[in-house]
Amino acid sequence: QVGHSKARCLCLNGLVNRVKPLHIEKIEVYTSSHSCRNMEIIVTLKNGKGKKCLNPEAPFAKKTIEKIMNNQRSVQ
Amino acid sequence: QVGHSKARCLCLNGLVNRVKPLHIEKIEVYTSSHSCRNMEIIVTLKNGKGKKCLNPEAPFAKKTIEKIMNNQRSVQ
Repeated sequence: QVGHSKARCLCLNGLVNRVKPLHIEKIEVYTSSHSCRNMEIIVTLKNGKGKKCLNPEAPFAKKTIEKIMNNQRSVQ
Repeated sequence: QVGHSKARCLCLNGLVNRVKPLHIEKIEVYTSSHSCRNMEIIVTLKNGKGKKCLNPEAPFAKKTIEKIMNNQRSVQ
């Protein structure tokens, strides 16, 4: 499922399948590129709790992003 | 549609309603927070063509993100 050219990918230390939407401060989606063939999704957690790489193949990733897009104002 | 506390929002210079998905290198979604009540979506364009703030209220924003999530490998 992942590309072969991983030299410059950002998510090298494993992916998580879930993050609580309420804990998300920021989501970064890097599209496939010459430097990394995988799409990468990096979630920054609130309260300085660091970053996680979210598995783009996990149905949860898509659902979470849709949820955030739909409930913009209520995801505090 | 937008919050009143804009002091630390990132998108102060207008929003665009559309960006060609193929031109997108990275999407950043900032959830609503104490520093900015609006959800903000910042798109970084490929080839050093800068950043745009995408209107989160535009149906296009959601569709674009869904498209990127669904066609991960083909969005080169």
